[in-house]
Parts: sequence; C-alpha cells; structure tokens
Amino acid sequence: MLAILFLAIHLITHLTGQMGVQSKPNEATLMKHLFREYDRRARPKKDPLAPVNLAVRVIVNQILLVDEKKQIIETYVSYNMTWKDDFLTWSPANFSNLKRLVVPTNNLWVPKLIVINAGKDVSTNTNDDGFAAEVYSNGEVKLILATTAYTTCIFDLTLFPFDKQKCELKLGIFGHFCSEVNMSKYDNELKFLWYTPHTEWAVEGSSLKEMAYKDGEGSYCTLDGTIFIRRKSLYLVNNVLIPCVLISFISLASFGVPPESGEKISLSMTTLLSYSVFLLVLSEMLPRNSDTGPILTYYIISVMAITAISLLCSVLVVRLHYGTSKPPKWIRLLVLNYIAKLCCQTTKKVSPSAKVNESMGESGQFEETWLKIGRTLDRFFAIIFFMIIMIVSLTLLVVIPAMNST
Amino acid sequence: MLAILFLAIHLITHLTGQMGVQSKPNEATLMKHLFREYDRRARPKKDPLAPVNLAVRVIVNQILLVDEKKQIIETYVSYNMTWKDDFLTWSPANFSNLKRLVVPTNNLWVPKLIVINAGKDVSTNTNDDGFAAEVYSNGEVKLILATTAYTTCIFDLTLFPFDKQKCELKLGIFGHFCSEVNMSKYDNELKFLWYTPHTEWAVEGSSLKEMAYKDGEGSYCTLDGTIFIRRKSLYLVNNVLIPCVLISFISLASFGVPPESGEKISLSMTTLLSYSVFLLVLSEMLPRNSDTGPILTYYIISVMAITAISLLCSVLVVRLHYGTSKPPKWIRLLVLNYIAKLCCQTTKKVSPSAKVNESMGESGQFEETWLKIGRTLDRFFAIIFFMIIMIVSLTLLVVIPAMNST
Amino acid sequence: MLAILFLAIHLITHLTGQMGVQSKPNEATLMKHLFREYDRRARPKKDPLAPVNLAVRVIVNQILLVDEKKQIIETYVSYNMTWKDDFLTWSPANFSNLKRLVVPTNNLWVPKLIVINAGKDVSTNTNDDGFAAEVYSNGEVKLILATTAYTTCIFDLTLFPFDKQKCELKLGIFGHFCSEVNMSKYDNELKFLWYTPHTEWAVEGSSLKEMAYKDGEGSYCTLDGTIFIRRKSLYLVNNVLIPCVLISFISLASFGVPPESGEKISLSMTTLLSYSVFLLVLSEMLPRNSDTGPILTYYIISVMAITAISLLCSVLVVRLHYGTSKPPKWIRLLVLNYIAKLCCQTTKKVSPSAKVNESMGESGQFEETWLKIGRTLDRFFAIIFFMIIMIVSLTLLVVIPAMNST
Amino acid sequence: MLAILFLAIHLITHLTGQMGVQSKPNEATLMKHLFREYDRRARPKKDPLAPVNLAVRVIVNQILLVDEKKQIIETYVSYNMTWKDDFLTWSPANFSNLKRLVVPTNNLWVPKLIVINAGKDVSTNTNDDGFAAEVYSNGEVKLILATTAYTTCIFDLTLFPFDKQKCELKLGIFGHFCSEVNMSKYDNELKFLWYTPHTEWAVEGSSLKEMAYKDGEGSYCTLDGTIFIRRKSLYLVNNVLIPCVLISFISLASFGVPPESGEKISLSMTTLLSYSVFLLVLSEMLPRNSDTGPILTYYIISVMAITAISLLCSVLVVRLHYGTSKPPKWIRLLVLNYIAKLCCQTTKKVSPSAKVNESMGESGQFEETWLKIGRTLDRFFAIIFFMIIMIVSLTLLVVIPAMNST
Amino acid sequence: MLAILFLAIHLITHLTGQMGVQSKPNEATLMKHLFREYDRRARPKKDPLAPVNLAVRVIVNQILLVDEKKQIIETYVSYNMTWKDDFLTWSPANFSNLKRLVVPTNNLWVPKLIVINAGKDVSTNTNDDGFAAEVYSNGEVKLILATTAYTTCIFDLTLFPFDKQKCELKLGIFGHFCSEVNMSKYDNELKFLWYTPHTEWAVEGSSLKEMAYKDGEGSYCTLDGTIFIRRKSLYLVNNVLIPCVLISFISLASFGVPPESGEKISLSMTTLLSYSVFLLVLSEMLPRNSDTGPILTYYIISVMAITAISLLCSVLVVRLHYGTSKPPKWIRLLVLNYIAKLCCQTTKKVSPSAKVNESMGESGQFEETWLKIGRTLDRFFAIIFFMIIMIVSLTLLVVIPAMNST
Repeated sequence: MLAILFLAIHLITHLTGQMGVQSKPNEATLMKHLFREYDRRARPKKDPLAPVNLAVRVIVNQILLVDEKKQIIETYVSYNMTWKDDFLTWSPANFSNLKRLVVPTNNLWVPKLIVINAGKDVSTNTNDDGFAAEVYSNGEVKLILATTAYTTCIFDLTLFPFDKQKCELKLGIFGHFCSEVNMSKYDNELKFLWYTPHTEWAVEGSSLKEMAYKDGEGSYCTLDGTIFIRRKSLYLVNNVLIPCVLISFISLASFGVPPESGEKISLSMTTLLSYSVFLLVLSEMLPRNSDTGPILTYYIISVMAITAISLLCSVLVVRLHYGTSKPPKWIRLLVLNYIAKLCCQTTKKVSPSAKVNESMGESGQFEETWLKIGRTLDRFFAIIFFMIIMIVSLTLLVVIPAMNST
Repeated sequence: MLAILFLAIHLITHLTGQMGVQSKPNEATLMKHLFREYDRRARPKKDPLAPVNLAVRVIVNQILLVDEKKQIIETYVSYNMTWKDDFLTWSPANFSNLKRLVVPTNNLWVPKLIVINAGKDVSTNTNDDGFAAEVYSNGEVKLILATTAYTTCIFDLTLFPFDKQKCELKLGIFGHFCSEVNMSKYDNELKFLWYTPHTEWAVEGSSLKEMAYKDGEGSYCTLDGTIFIRRKSLYLVNNVLIPCVLISFISLASFGVPPESGEKISLSMTTLLSYSVFLLVLSEMLPRNSDTGPILTYYIISVMAITAISLLCSVLVVRLHYGTSKPPKWIRLLVLNYIAKLCCQTTKKVSPSAKVNESMGESGQFEETWLKIGRTLDRFFAIIFFMIIMIVSLTLLVVIPAMNST
Repeated sequence: MLAILFLAIHLITHLTGQMGVQSKPNEATLMKHLFREYDRRARPKKDPLAPVNLAVRVIVNQILLVDEKKQIIETYVSYNMTWKDDFLTWSPANFSNLKRLVVPTNNLWVPKLIVINAGKDVSTNTNDDGFAAEVYSNGEVKLILATTAYTTCIFDLTLFPFDKQKCELKLGIFGHFCSEVNMSKYDNELKFLWYTPHTEWAVEGSSLKEMAYKDGEGSYCTLDGTIFIRRKSLYLVNNVLIPCVLISFISLASFGVPPESGEKISLSMTTLLSYSVFLLVLSEMLPRNSDTGPILTYYIISVMAITAISLLCSVLVVRLHYGTSKPPKWIRLLVLNYIAKLCCQTTKKVSPSAKVNESMGESGQFEETWLKIGRTLDRFFAIIFFMIIMIVSLTLLVVIPAMNST
Repeated sequence: MLAILFLAIHLITHLTGQMGVQSKPNEATLMKHLFREYDRRARPKKDPLAPVNLAVRVIVNQILLVDEKKQIIETYVSYNMTWKDDFLTWSPANFSNLKRLVVPTNNLWVPKLIVINAGKDVSTNTNDDGFAAEVYSNGEVKLILATTAYTTCIFDLTLFPFDKQKCELKLGIFGHFCSEVNMSKYDNELKFLWYTPHTEWAVEGSSLKEMAYKDGEGSYCTLDGTIFIRRKSLYLVNNVLIPCVLISFISLASFGVPPESGEKISLSMTTLLSYSVFLLVLSEMLPRNSDTGPILTYYIISVMAITAISLLCSVLVVRLHYGTSKPPKWIRLLVLNYIAKLCCQTTKKVSPSAKVNESMGESGQFEETWLKIGRTLDRFFAIIFFMIIMIVSLTLLVVIPAMNST
Repeated sequence: MLAILFLAIHLITHLTGQMGVQSKPNEATLMKHLFREYDRRARPKKDPLAPVNLAVRVIVNQILLVDEKKQIIETYVSYNMTWKDDFLTWSPANFSNLKRLVVPTNNLWVPKLIVINAGKDVSTNTNDDGFAAEVYSNGEVKLILATTAYTTCIFDLTLFPFDKQKCELKLGIFGHFCSEVNMSKYDNELKFLWYTPHTEWAVEGSSLKEMAYKDGEGSYCTLDGTIFIRRKSLYLVNNVLIPCVLISFISLASFGVPPESGEKISLSMTTLLSYSVFLLVLSEMLPRNSDTGPILTYYIISVMAITAISLLCSVLVVRLHYGTSKPPKWIRLLVLNYIAKLCCQTTKKVSPSAKVNESMGESGQFEETWLKIGRTLDRFFAIIFFMIIMIVSLTLLVVIPAMNST
C-alpha cells in the first residue's frame, strides 16, 4: 500500500517538474503544451502526404548595390510567408482566451526559402534567432523575413548611361518537392511598399511568376521575380557626358587656328592632354565590363583619334614651311580638286598672282601649294570631324534618351 | 518497508541533484529558483491578455556614416528598455537580502526590438550573449542594448554643400501587437548623452513619436525617431568651393588678354585643363546621387562651358587676321551697334581714319572691322561671364550659407 | 500486484513521453524513429570497414573575383553529393507511404568536403543550418552545398591583356582515407549549368580528375578540378591599349616639327606629360604582380624612353643655334655620311651655296653643319622610333590576339 | 530482499553513469566535481552581498587605425583580469595534487567587461569559446582577454601634421554595481608591454583612473584609460609639406618674369595647374574633418589665391601695351608714389626723357606710365607674397615642430 | 518476484535506450563507448600531473597581405598537431577491427593553439565545427588546423623597393604551462609545402625555435617562427623607378636650353608639372610609413628641389635682359672667375669686342656680363645636378640591388 503511495508521489513530482503548478494558463503554459511533442525538423502535416501550402509575398525594400562588373544586384528584400501548421493548434477557451502567440523561429518548422540565383549566400534566414513567427490558434503561421539578396544579373551596357536592365530574383524551397511544400504567390509582381529609391537606378516595373522545375521523381517549385530598372543618368550626364562633349567641340577649334600662327600644335596637344586627364575621371565611372562596349567608349576613342590626326596634320602643315621638294601631282589633284570641291571651297583661280609667285622661284611655289593643301585638308577634317561629333553627340544626348523615355 | 526507504533515498538523490545542499541562499540559489520553470519564449505575464508595458529611451551615441549615394545613415544607438516580468519576482528576505540580479539576456524573455526602416539588419540584439539585463525583486527588468542602426534616409542635395537633411529611425517590436507589448517613450526626442560629434554633420535637433500601425486584427506599436542634421561645410568650402571660385575668376582673365598677343588661346586652354584636373578632386567628393543635381554641379558646368566658348571666340579672332572675306552687314550691325552699346563701349566715330584704311585696300578694312567685332564680343562675353560668375559665386558662398544659418 | 500495475504505468508514461500517442505515423514519427539512436559523428556504415561511396558533381555558378596580385580566384560553386546512409532506411509501408524526407544537415552524418588549395577558408559547409539533405527510404542521401571557394592560382601575365590562365580547385574529405570515404566524380569536367558569365574572364574549358594522395597508412582521395579562363580584353583594349598606341604615334610627331620653329621641345614635353597622366590610369588597371612583367609595361617604358631621347635631341639642336665651336670631324663623318645613308637621305651636294656660307664667316658654317647633323639625327630617330612603335603596336594589337584566338 | 538488491543496482548504475569508475582522480574528475552544481550566470560569492573584487590590467598591443574623419581610434588591447570564485575551490590533496585548472570561459562566471565609449562593439569577449581562464585551488581565477577596441576620440587638427591627440578608453562592467563587482586597477597607466609601434602615431604617455558613475540606487565602476599620441610627420613632411613649399616659392618666380617677355601668364598658369594637380595628392592625405581646419589648408588656399592674383596682375600689365586711355591721376599717385616708396623703389626722376616721350605722343606716354604702374605693382606683390610665404613656411616647418617637440 | 521482473525490464529498456541493440559494433558504437564519460574540457591524462606532449608542424600556405603602414603580415597557415589522449584508446579487436576514427573537434579535448603576436585575432580554431581530428586506437590524435594568421611585424623601409624584412609568428597554448601541455616542434623551420608564391614578396628562408616564457609559478611554452622575405621589385622598378629616373634626366635638359630662346622657363615648369603628376602615382605605391623614410623619397625631393632651383635660375637670367644696374664686383669675381674655372669653362678673353660693347653704352655691357653670369651658373648647376642624379640613380638602380642580391 505504501509502495503505491510513494510511487504516486514519484509520478506526481515527475509530472509537476515538467508542467508546473500554475493557477491560470498563460503563454508559458501554452508554449509548453504546444512544443512538448513538437519536432521542428518535420513538415507539420498530420497526413504526411499532404503538401504544406505556402503563400509568399516578396517586398523589395531597397536596392543596395548594382555592380555591373561582377554582374550582381544586391537588394534588401522582405518575404511575407503564411502556412498552416497542423500541430500548433489549440482551443483558446482552454488557454485564457489566448488567440495568437509570437514564437521565435528556432522553435518551429519554417520553410527554408532560398534565393536560387544567389551569387554569395543562398539562404534567407541565416540568423534564426533574430526573427519570430506569429502563430494563430487555428494553426496559421505568419512569418516575415528580411534579408539581403545578392543575385546575379546579366547587364547590357551598350546604351550606357541610358541603359535599362532586367534582373531576376528566383526563390525556391530547399530540398522539398512541390508535392511537399507547395509555394504560391500573393501578388503578380514584386511589391515596393516602403521602398527607398536608389539614387542611380529607377524601378520601372516588376513581375512575379510561379514556376516548377522538374528533377527526377518530383518537381521543385520556384517563384521567379523580375525587376526592371533604368539608370538615372543625371549625375553621369552632368559630370561625364557634358564635359566630354565640351572638350570634343574644343578639339574642333584646333582646325580653326591658322597653321602659321604657331599655336596650332600646342592647342591640339593640350586638348589631347585634357582628354588624358578626363580619362582618369571616366575610368572610375565607367563600369569595367568587357562583354559590351558602351557607345560612349567608342565616342571617346573616336574623338581622341581625330584629335591625334588633327595634331599630325598640323605638324605636317608646319613642316611644309621648311619643305624644299615639289608636291607630287596626284596629291595636288586629289586635294586641291576633289577634296576642295567636297568642302565647298571656292578655289579662286588666282592664276595671275600664281604666275608672279612662280617667277619668284620654285620654292615659294612649293610652299604656296603645300599651304593650300594643308588648308584644304584642315577644312576637310574640320567638316568631317564636326559632322561626326555633331551626329554622335546628338545621338548620345538627344536621340537615345528620347528613345529610352518612351 | 525497505522498499519505502530506498524509494525515499531515490527521491532525495533526485532532488538534491537539482537543488544542491547549500547553507545560505546565494545568487545561484536565486537563479535556480527563478529560472527552473521559466520559459523565455513566452511573454512574462501571469494574465496572458495583459500587455507588457515597455518604456524605451533612444540614445544616439555617434553618427558613423552618412552615405548620400546609397541613401543610408549608420548610427551607433543605445536603447534603454524597462518592463515588468511577472515571473521574476522574489522576496529579498528569503534570499539573503538580494534585491537585484544581473542576468544574461539569453535566459529571460526580452522584447525583440527591431529597426523597421533598416537597410541591412533589422535586429538590434544580434548577439544575445553580449548583453545582460538588471532584474529587480519586484520583477522590474532594465536592459541596455547598443547596436549599429543602418537606416535608410532620402537625401535632397540641391543645396550641397550647405544642405540639411532629415533622417528617420523607426523602431518596432517583432510580431507583437500593441495589446501584447505596449511600447512607449521616456522622452520626446532622441537623447544625445555621451554623443561624439561627427566631423561632417552637425545634429540640429530630433524628435520621437509614438505611432501605431494597424494591420488586420491588431495594430503594431512603433516609435518614430527623427534626427535633423546639417552638413558642416568647412572642409568642402576650403578644398572645393574656394579653389573652384578662384579658377572661375581666372577664366575671366582670358578675355582680358589681347587676341594679338598669341597667349589668349593658350591661357583659355590651360584654364580648361585645370578644370579637368579639378574635376578629379570633385568627382571624389561630390555624392554620386542622380536624384538631385547640386547647384554646385551646374556652376561648374556653366563655368566650363563659358571657358570653352571664350576659347572658341579667341580662335575666331585669331583666325580673322588671315581672313579675306568682308564681314556680312548684319553682323557688323548687330555686334558694333547693339552689343557694343550694351557693353557701354564708346565706339569712337573714327570715320576719317576709316576712310583712309578703306582707301588702303579692302582686305585691311575687313581685318579692322573683324578685329573690332572680336574685341566687342570679347568685352561682351567678359561682362556676361563676370556677371554670371559673380552672381553664382555670391549665391554659393554668401546667400545660401546665410539662409541656412538662420 | 498493484506494484506491477503502477510500474507498468510508470513504464508507459516513460515511453509515451518519448514517442507520443499519434494515430497515423507522420514525418515527425519517422524522424524520431530514425534519429533516436543515430550518431551523426560516426560514418553511417553497418560494416565499419566498408567505405562510404560518395559521388560529387561540381557546378561552377559564377566567377566572383580574379585577383592577379594575391593570386586568388574566388568562385561560387555548388557541390551535388550523393551517398548511402545505412542507418537512415525505413519501410515506407510502415510510415504512411513516406518515401523521402528533407532533413537539416545538422542532424545527420555529412562528409566534410574541403577545398584543399583554399586561400582563406577550407570548409565548404560553414553554416550547417542553412542546408538540408534529401533522404530516401533506401538510405540514399542527396545534398547540395553552395559556397564561395577562394582558391589560389598562379598567374602568368606576360601576354596581358591577352593572357589565358589555368586555375585549380582541389577538393578533399577532411580526415578520412579513401578506404573510409571513397570520393568519385559524376562528370569528367566542372559543370557550368546556370553559369553567370564574368565580365572580364571567359571560361574556355575545364576538367575534373580523381586523385589519391598517399600519406602514412592510408591515402586521401581528392577531386582535382581545373578551369581554363581567358581574359576578355575589350575594356582594356578600348581604355588602355588604343589610347596608349595613339599617344605613342603622337610622340613620333615631335620628330616632324622643325627645330627652328620653337615648338619642338614643348610638343615633346607635353607628350611626356600626357604619358605621366596616362600612367595614372594604367597604374590602376595593371595587375601589381612582380613575377611576370607584361609586354605592355615594356612597351610603355620604351615609348617613354624614346620620347625623352627625342626631347633631349631637340634641346641639342636648339642649342646649336647659339653654338660657337666647330663640330668635331668624327661626328660630321658619322652623322652626315653613315647615318644619313641609313635614313635614305639624299644629302644633296650643294657645294656652291656651302662655299658662299663659308665665306660669310665661320660661325654660320658651324650652325649650318650642326643643323644638318640635327636634322639627320631627327630623321634617324624618327625612322627607328616609327619602326619600333609599328612592330610593338602590331604585335600587341594584331599578332598576340590572333595567336591567342587560335 | 531482491527488490532492495535491484534498487541498489539501479542506484549504482545511475550514479556511475554520472561520475565514472576511475581509479585515480584526474582533471576530468575535478571538473565534474567543480561544475556539477555550478551556475555560471550567478556571481560566484557564497555571501551574496559581498562584492567580487576584480583587478584589471590594460595592455595596449597595437594601434590599428586612427580615423580622423569618423573620430575613431582602433586598438588591439589585452585585459588581464583576476578575481576570486568562491565555488571553484578544492583541496589539491584530494585530487592527485592538482593545483590549477585551465577552463574554457564558457563554463564559469566571467565579468562582462565592456568598452563604454565604443563606436561599434561594446563587448570585449564576443567569442567565449576562444579563451580559457586559469583557475587555482584557492578559487583565484586569472583571465586574459584580447580584443579590438573601437573607441571614439575627438580630434583637434589645427596643427596638422604636427598635432597631438588624447584618446580615451573607458571600461565598465555590464549591469553590475560597484557593490557587486568592484573593479580596480593594477597599474596607474595603460601598459605597452609587447607594443608594436604604429607607423603614423607615436605614443607619448597614458594614464588609468578608477571612476564611479552614480545612477539611481547604486553606482557603476569604470576604469578610464587615456592615451596620449603624437603624429609622426616624416611621411607627410616629405610628401606633402616640402613639395608644397617648393611650389609656393616657384609661384614667386612669376613676379620676376618681365611682363614684356610673353611668358609671365604662362608661368603663373602652369604653377596654378601644378597646384591643382597637387591638390589631388593632398585630398587623399588630409583628414576630411570639418570641425577644425588645419593651418596647412589655409596655407594652400592663400598660396593659390596669391598665384591667381599674380596671374590677373600679369594679364593687366600685358593688356596695358594695347591700352589707349590715360591712367587716372589717383592711380598714378597711389602706385607710383606711395606703393613705390613702400617697395623701396628708387623712382628715378627721369623727367627729361618723360618729356621727350610726351612729345612723341600721348599713347606712348600712357604705355610708359602703365608699364611703370605694372612693374611697381609686380614688385609690391612680390614683396608681400614673399613675406607671407616666408612667414607661413617658417611657421609650418620650423616653429610648430619646435614648439611641439618641447 | 514480479517486481523483480519489471524492474529488470525497466533496467533493460534504460540501457538499450542508451546503447542500442546492434549486432556488430560499428563506428557509432565506438563513439558512444569513447565519449560517454569523456569531458572535453579536461586535459586527457590519466595521471593529472603528466604533461600532454604536443608536436606541432607549421606550414605556411600563402602570404595573403603585407601591410607596411599597419606593420601587419597576413599569412594562411596550417598547423599539424599530434598528441596522445589517454581516454581515447580502444582495442580494435572488440570493435570490428576499427583502427582509427575521424572525430569532429568539438567532441574532444584540443589544445587551444594561439598566435601570440596577433594583431587581430589570437585564436587559431575559431570555427570548431569545420575541422575533424584523426584518432588512432592507441590514443594518438592528429589534427590539422588551417587559419589566417594576422601577425605584427616591424618594417624597415630605408632600402625600399629593395628591402628585406623579417617577420615573426609566435605560437602559444592558451592558459597552460609547459608542465601541462609541452609543445615541441617537428622541424627546425616553417614548412612551405604547397606554398603559393606571393607576387610582391619572395620568401628567403625561415626558422622555428622552441622557447619558454616564465611567469609566476610556471612557464609558458612558445614556438617562435621567423620568416625572411625580400620584396620583388620588378613592378616597382618598371612603373616607378624607371619613369622617375627618366624625368630626372629630362629636368637636366632645361639647363641646356639657351635662356634667350624663351623656352627655358616653360620646359622647367612642365618638368615640375610632370613631377607633380608623377607624385600621384607614387603616393599610391609608397608605403605610408613615417618611421623610416625610404631613400627613394629623398631622391624625388632632391630632384624636385633642383628642378625648382633651375627654374628660378632661368627666371633670373631672363630678367637680366631688362636689367639696368651694373652687376656688383664680388658677383662677377665669384661667378666668372671661380665658378667658371670649376666648370672647366674657357672664359675666352674677348676683350676687344667687350670694348666695342662698352663704347656702345653701359647697359649693353651690363647685359653681356649678366648673360655670362647666367650661362656660367647654368653650366655650374647642370654639372652639379648631373652628378647628383648620376650618383643617386646609379645607387638606386645598380648598387643597392647588387648589394641585396648577394
């Protein structure tokens, strides 16, 4: 009889040691009730073949970094997830009318949402302890995760700095087939509630699609988000494009300086030097991407090349002052007849004075002809250069922005 | 009978194994007493429907980083939190007069304070073990957390470097409704006790407001802090503004150099080169923000443009020395009559000598007229340029700072 | 009798406390069944001398960083691993037809795959909790790990920017001999499914080999992956090579300017200044590697040296105008006879005028001879320089790329 | 009887399961003995109202970073702590003569030493597992922690680069009053045993004081360390100050070039350009601190300003060559009489030739007078400029270093 | 009787619950056998006063970073450790012939190896879970750790870029005396098996010594490794030294330009400008260390100073053209007699023409004398400058490398 008594005492102390002797059930009582038998590794379904239905809303809070070289876009994203946990249900009546609980995520089953096209860290919930899920008495669980997504994105920089890009954010569930965790979307697009705009990129739109990727016996569910962004070009137009166009028009000026003045070479050279200096600023701002060369780069190269040619041309003309040989006939023909006509130059038939010069001596005649050749070439280059610069500059500053804004 | 004895021994060893046989109660005894049945996941309320009243004081210790490009402000903030834990009460008389305990935060329930408008990490207590709460015998808990808050903030850089900004720090409690954890503020503003001033930004004031954000069945409590900061411009005025204004006045000088001297082009060109070099310094200091173009940028662009125009103008005048065509009448009229009058130039009616020149030959007359046109344009540009530079420079250095200091 | 009863009760409560009283077995039941006796530290083989057969597929997702200075390549790699766990088998029939489980990796034995030639972190699964393995009822385990591999790689930059490199990724199993964990490969190469191309490096191929490294009593299995990459040179050609070649051709121009014009020194000097500025851009783009000097560096040094020599040469010629001493006979002989012939210069025997000059006075004669020497040297240097620049530039821009593309 | 036997067996297996059946007590036996009842959360005092007496020695191993912009100093510091743990005592005789134990810090109570004026991380022992405490049989515990302290420090940069700073390191105990944990110091200063000197800052001394900060019912103990540092200026003198002074003396040279030579403007302009380039080097080296403008900055600004003025002055003089108006009387009076006298210029009364010039024509007279005005101004500016540069340069390079070295 | 039966059942279920009912012992059985009583906090010695004999091999895999400013060297190091664990022994015969086990390091006692002269993190095994030890049946334990060692190192940069440095890596055991953990070395040097060479530093040798550091009652064992490194100077010679020497020889050229030509000032100035630009490249490459000024810095300063002096000298000579005062006798004597002789100048006694000039007027005489003084000074400076540059350049490029390579 006593044995019974003592065993009973044993039993009671054993039970109270686990449950406590509280008067009115509170949150702690409920927690203990819910989690005593709970195994957070297992999918919370009483019928093990039924899927967990997971609804996900993706909210982009901020674009943190767009790296054209690494082809990476870093965003700060919130994920609102809702599902039903069969083992976290209770009758509020039995627990002082408690209808909801806030439970740290390291206590319950949580779908392992991953970023599939991540470039650094696949996981979205690296720090479990930092988050808490809201659990309702019918088993509904609401969880908001917020992490930095570091996703890869292929850039096309041809129209830089007026380019538009399209970047993806692919979400999946680690290990589970659709038949186990069935992921669906709330909205048809990424949400930008509380979005802090990026200073260099404007968001033009987004989409979100449910996809399934078949592999072996089952298929994996994914949510494919796409974000459309457009570069805000104000800073680059002000600090790169406008100075660039200014200097290119100045390099035109060197064609205007008469070769006799002795300043032509120096002006060309200083323009070229300015370009070199300017390349320093550019080299920090242009994305180092070797897949697509931006039109801007070709613009700068062509302006540098023409400036260099104009410099060589000036040197040629200056050298002619000291020349002693007669210009070959084909050059005279080519330059003075054909090119001159192209440049709409009225090659005045000043034949009488020409004769006078001829009588003065051969060398004077050479020089005169050489000078004419030089001037005609100058005018020819000036016209070509002006046209090239006008076309490219207009395209860069007017046509491309116009095309992109539509 | 013996069975009873042995069972009793069993029971005793079981109990002592958990409680120890100490003579006088000490902190360890109290800890064991308090935390044996404690569940740190549950809100510490005996009445589960009563809210935890949480009072928060927000102390800004330091502004660590202000990033105008990412629109982020990083601050080092302390949070003083006080609440009442119904399960951490004891009678000091029973525990050797112990009135308070210092408990590592990973042992007790702690409200999960989060930074809502964070750009990187929402959580404020990432490293639980590093902090300890002070617990008083009546259940009052005091906790000081200190973390780096990385909050988003929209910048308006129009008045750079004399701009003022307004940044928010929104605090919330993860998952809990106001009816569960009721957050209130101690003070009406952010506190700056022990504040180490930032070298680039001065704090001009702050505010702190209690807000509630309704969502579904309940509403979430938030504390909305705002910090008003003003850029300290000394470094930027010394190293950017003053050299910038100096060079712009020098570019005026090129209008003063007579076109005949052969140094006009070279001076303009070197000024432009200096600007290019200067842009290098600037490009490191100007925030790369494409939303708002600072007035300073437009100032630099306009100075560069006018320098370029003055260069082209000089080339024009130099070229006229070698010109052979007669200037069109409308140009003569426009420049020599109207513009000259605007420039307050006394266009001396030197008609007799003009006639003499005319008799000398047509080409001499052209040159004279062209030169006059050139000089008038020079003076015209000089006046316009001087006015623009004076106005913009005065605005930048005198008016805007004056307006902002009031 | 009662004692039996109560002991039975004791026994039952003990058992139910561990197993629960659920109607239909679900995932949690299975988990508990599988992991009750499981020891994740031990190799999962019933026969302890049998090896775990591990098959690995290596998928390169992205090249993150190629650091020529540190000789490091950082890649984001996925590892698909498959093995058989003797202790994780069950009969689906007993467990509601469950055929697979998704288990967080911190619950089961996982091979410690390491990167042997790592430069920072050897481990591939630093964050166990972030990943989950798929376990099938026959004991087959599938695990996908994704981590950043930071591997060392020796670079040969001689052909920069047209170089090709070969980098290794050596995988091993921490501590285990082949006779314990036998690692094999799925494929004969690294896989590039879902590869996001790097903007600076193109992947040209890869290989994967099974190796064994003998040490003491056993041998360690390794998988030696090799990745062949080629530098995409578009950005560097546009922003470094082309401007570089342009400036080098301009430095040729200084030989064309007649020494009398007074612009020769200034042109040479400004070219050299442009080079100095250009070195700034280069110094940021050239990899700071002292093992192999790229051909490009030697090209730049030689162009700088020749520009400097041409400057000194110009100074010499300008100085001769004010010279008063007679040029030594050996110089005249060397320069006017031998070098002149090399330059194909028709040294016109203008003896009569020479005589006239001679009669004019000695000093005039000196100057004339000195000038001739200067001009001949100019032409001589121009030809040599032009040849060097043509050869090096052609090699750099045409021959090396052509050789590498084959 | 049998029941007794079996219960006894039960009891024994239960006990041996916890204690083991070892022949001779070893470290593991002692560990188990000491830590079975140990609660590491509680202060280790048998009398709960007695304080733990904690002695701290602070050893600075290295200054890692001094950031004048963020006002942060980062040091690598070791803390030697000693206290007595009442519960970690044993009689060596009972434990095979073991007198000391090395115990990982996550097993015993450790005072939570914090850096109060930290700018990033308050905690000193973030990674508990990395450290181990030495425990002696009388309960004495010795612990050495080593962490990076990231402390705030207010900088005064007026004397840059010859400035001295004073930085604090305030230590406290998290949560505990002095009456609970009584912190005291070993030494009166910070120790620099094994100190690796910083390459930019020299340590000139230090102090360490015990303080108490009263708050509510109790007071918190702190140890206030102060470190006095002086900037080592060798690098900055060589690479910033000396080139800076060199260029400022060169800008003097432009006053020496005669205005007629046509090189005056060009020299001034190139000097200014050199300054712009030099500002690039400076902008990387000067701390970006807007609270105190270093004297060096004002020096550079004033030199730039005077160079700019000299340039404008040169333009003025060059322009006078082409002037046609008569200089106003007050200018002649001011410049030629008063300023000339100030410059100790012997304004030779060349009245006769003046008359001759006058007879030659009015314009010639103007020019002569204007030239004189220009030259006098030149000399006047040269003298003022030379004096300013001499004074500032001497102050910077001689007086301030001398004052600071005493 | 029944009680006995049931108790027996109880006992059996209790035991099987811990050991399982497996047919053949496997790794899991062995693990459970070994670790049931194991305490990983205690030194694994049955005789608690016997030391653990620890043998360490230090393998340097890579030099990651050499920071001359912070005086830090970062290496990636492997530590091979071997010791005997008295509690991890078994008889293979009883365990299916298992002779070795691979055990994760967080299960057994591991010596806490630390880097004593660390500048950031003392610990070598921060991530316990990432490593596994090999345990043999006789108790021998083999462990390979691999971590980044961040050690302090004092640099002497006098011979930069041809300097050699000596850096230490001091290893110790946290908390243990030699009498507890007796650390010894395998080899007499650091091993460089699998070493990936650094691109900037070559390893010239190494040593490893056993040391003991006495402190109070016991002494701490340390292993003092030393690594001897030499800077690979190819990159710095190509990109810093050679351009530097080139520009310094060009600054010589300005002495050759005749003062009358009007290009002397401009050449000097542009050289100085090139130096300023060049300082930009240098300032990024020179280590910012104020303890030892590299010879290279003094070389650059002296070249800059001499270039500046030559510029001032040129200005002086140009100014003399417009001079009107007679040169003082002592200057004429000093310059034309003494300095001219030093320069081996044959000061031709051109007395007749001198007289002619004298008759022409006083001012002409002045100028002639002044010009002679200028030219003599030019030649004097050219010779001194050439000698200084030759000596320093030869020393830098020939002597120091030669001395260092021996």
